[in-house]
Amino acid sequence: MTKSNQKADDDPMSLAFVEAEAAAARGEAPIGAVLVDAKGLVLARSGNRTEGDSDPTAHAEMLVIRQAAALRGEPRLPDCVLYVTLEPCAMCAGAIAHARLRRLVFAAYDPKGGGVEHGARVFSRATCHHHPEVIGGVREGEAGALLKRFFAQLRNQDSKDE
Amino acid sequence: MTKSNQKADDDPMSLAFVEAEAAAARGEAPIGAVLVDAKGLVLARSGNRTEGDSDPTAHAEMLVIRQAAALRGEPRLPDCVLYVTLEPCAMCAGAIAHARLRRLVFAAYDPKGGGVEHGARVFSRATCHHHPEVIGGVREGEAGALLKRFFAQLRNQDSKDE
Repeated sequence: MTKSNQKADDDPMSLAFVEAEAAAARGEAPIGAVLVDAKGLVLARSGNRTEGDSDPTAHAEMLVIRQAAALRGEPRLPDCVLYVTLEPCAMCAGAIAHARLRRLVFAAYDPKGGGVEHGARVFSRATCHHHPEVIGGVREGEAGALLKRFFAQLRNQDSKDE
Repeated sequence: MTKSNQKADDDPMSLAFVEAEAAAARGEAPIGAVLVDAKGLVLARSGNRTEGDSDPTAHAEMLVIRQAAALRGEPRLPDCVLYVTLEPCAMCAGAIAHARLRRLVFAAYDPKGGGVEHGARVFSRATCHHHPEVIGGVREGEAGALLKRFFAQLRNQDSKDE
């Protein structure tokens, strides 16, 4: 294996991108998430499903947290790391704190909808009972391009529908 | 019917209290929620289920929003009003904004865990895309007493277990 190949396609963030692309193909916001345990084993992976599931809470992050907690049979996942293609919103940041996740790794920053580095800044509040390690901006350009492509297509579709 | 009887036991906040008591009886945090439509029809009612369902997102508010959205087959509920016995946390406030609820009515304020009037103050952020009408402090004393009783019992149980 050459050095350039060492970033395998099945690393968690790559899987999150696969989920984001699959969500876009379903007409959902193109956001994907993967939850791994302390050994890096993938416990859950999902894209957004708010429209398909008629569930305003069905963001990718919420779904993988719920899936992994159900799999484990416990509501707290303190050894786990969440990879997601976009900065989580306030709802998802709150869920990350409730689940006691060890680390959050996200790709694109979200100045409009984000609740970690923007807006509600959930983990930065004195009353927040859990502060995961946060790593933002991983493969940011790639995630931003995916989002831009999706919203440009949506605008094209809207103008065709008029 | 005398004037003092006009507050029926099946008004939404009373139902939320019934759900809170039922949650406490299951060993969950004693919080209950009810979601009603524009006509006051109850679409969903639930207490907290985080422990029983092994789901860190299973707060009463999340469960009634998810139930009602599934019932309607749509992820937004702009005509609906949420009644809950405690100020929602940041996660639940985010879900309320995503669901576009018309109004939030809560009982006790929660200086430690609340995300509406405390902490993240989700609806007060310039980036928050939806601001429901918020009415807090309804039957606050009753809700506070229920919470205090629950946590006192929990402490008693803990000291017996030691």
